[in-house]
Amino acid sequence: MIDLHLIGIGTGNPDHLTAEAVRVMNEADLILLPRKGSAKSDLVDLRRTICAQVLHRPVRIIEFDMPVRDASVPYMQAVDEWHDAIAAAWRERIATHLPNGGSLALLVWGDPSLYDSSLRISDRLKAAGVETTVHVVPGITSIHALTAAHAIPLNPLAGSVTITTGRMLRKHGWPAGADTVVVMLDSGCAFEAIESAGIEIWWGAYLGMPQQALERGTLTQAAPGIAARRADLRARHGWIMDVYLMRKELADGSR
Amino acid sequence: MIDLHLIGIGTGNPDHLTAEAVRVMNEADLILLPRKGSAKSDLVDLRRTICAQVLHRPVRIIEFDMPVRDASVPYMQAVDEWHDAIAAAWRERIATHLPNGGSLALLVWGDPSLYDSSLRISDRLKAAGVETTVHVVPGITSIHALTAAHAIPLNPLAGSVTITTGRMLRKHGWPAGADTVVVMLDSGCAFEAIESAGIEIWWGAYLGMPQQALERGTLTQAAPGIAARRADLRARHGWIMDVYLMRKELADGSR
Ligand SMILES: C[S@@+](CC[C@H](N)C(=O)[O-])C[C@H]1O[C@@H](n2cnc3c(N)ncnc32)[C@H](O)[C@@H]1O
Ligand SMILES: C[S@@+](CC[C@H](N)C(=O)[O-])C[C@H]1O[C@@H](n2cnc3c(N)ncnc32)[C@H](O)[C@@H]1O
Repeated sequence: MIDLHLIGIGTGNPDHLTAEAVRVMNEADLILLPRKGSAKSDLVDLRRTICAQVLHRPVRIIEFDMPVRDASVPYMQAVDEWHDAIAAAWRERIATHLPNGGSLALLVWGDPSLYDSSLRISDRLKAAGVETTVHVVPGITSIHALTAAHAIPLNPLAGSVTITTGRMLRKHGWPAGADTVVVMLDSGCAFEAIESAGIEIWWGAYLGMPQQALERGTLTQAAPGIAARRADLRARHGWIMDVYLMRKELADGSR
Repeated sequence: MIDLHLIGIGTGNPDHLTAEAVRVMNEADLILLPRKGSAKSDLVDLRRTICAQVLHRPVRIIEFDMPVRDASVPYMQAVDEWHDAIAAAWRERIATHLPNGGSLALLVWGDPSLYDSSLRISDRLKAAGVETTVHVVPGITSIHALTAAHAIPLNPLAGSVTITTGRMLRKHGWPAGADTVVVMLDSGCAFEAIESAGIEIWWGAYLGMPQQALERGTLTQAAPGIAARRADLRARHGWIMDVYLMRKELADGSR
């Protein structure tokens, strides 16, 4: 019997950890940390740093090589196979290090509900016959790291917000009826693919981290600068994670 | 010169406070707490409890009577006047207790960017001539408290999410093109106003609090039970806050 704790750790700032996250980490029998490609090693290091900072009990920490997504097959199939491979890696570690069950903690970037596959991978554990109870500790998301860094509201007053991906924005354009759109998982400047008139953008990369970068402006004026800065930062650091919020000017000129 | 810190405190569980929130509270010269109507006194008590738990310095705490929104005028006008009144209350406390400027902290329910007026009220402070720099500390939102309590993803795989209000759902129906809809600020079961076929709902009230209540099911089957339970809880506690996520079954039967 495994108690699997998916713990949201925020998006780069160890100070975004909640008291609950710290408590659950300390109560775990085992913490599994993914080892990623060398380019993204900052991200693994952050998890190690967090463990070193907040653990006051000798909790066992085991690393595993994060499987890589196959870029040569169609996107949805690649994701599916990738999730299977990660579930297999978890299963193997559980069999070795928690043969009699216990409490397993995983440190999930941001919040575990937002564009993260840990919940879906947990379902595969259960499907493979590992008796598992899943517990989620909510975390600060990159969306709220973005709005906090810019000190802006997420929603227009009494209005709605659409959260989507770069892929969807490119495919479908500005979501029908939306005033505010947040774009995540954008592999490269999907904001360039939409009609920019009347839209304002607030952009952030490496939010919560020492290299945090922010830009804002009308989409028409800001887009080229953001694209150039993004390319530069990506080249400099070897990786980038960015998220942005776009708002349409309302008919009455307000927002 | 005022440094105004809007600190997200999560939605009822003091353990959802982040290390950053605790630090900024302890560094403040003054913490302003709203005093609300007696029905919602649990909510003020929580802020007091949090202060008692996390302050390890003698930070000055001042309470102020929260102005009440005028229900007799049109909604947008009422909100506008209400924000003016709150800004005036803040201004008065600042003039009395921070005449030479300093660091002022406000404890904001959930995250300050999400359906909260503190940022807009801060703009009114500036407009009234109070030199103010606004800083935001992100917090755990009721949305992530909901998805954590149910251990469910917010977004469908590679899909999008619409966050909206009960008022908008009643007025416009299911948002065009949306797979997943989160509804907040619903004064009473707007989910009853939409076509329920093919929709699943995850509902939560008093999330993070001892009286937390959860329901889930197909909208057709679960709606009457949620409505009845909501009315009962509201009568019992004198107030209720609830939020829910609804998902359309995708064409291929998956979610
Ligand atoms: C796989 S998703 C994980 C999201 C995460 N669960 C959350 O709550 O934010 C990764 C995407 O989140 C956004 N993101 C995550 N961390 C970020 C950061 N520190 N700065 C900017 N964007 C970030 C980017 O859009 C990135 O493509
Ligand atoms: C004025 S908004 C504030 C939202 C807050 N800033 C947040 O981040 O969740 C109040 C609405 O948030 C939701 N909410 C806040 N706290 C909640 C709780 N503990 N349980 C359920 N819903 C909650 C409800 O939809 C409520 O009508």
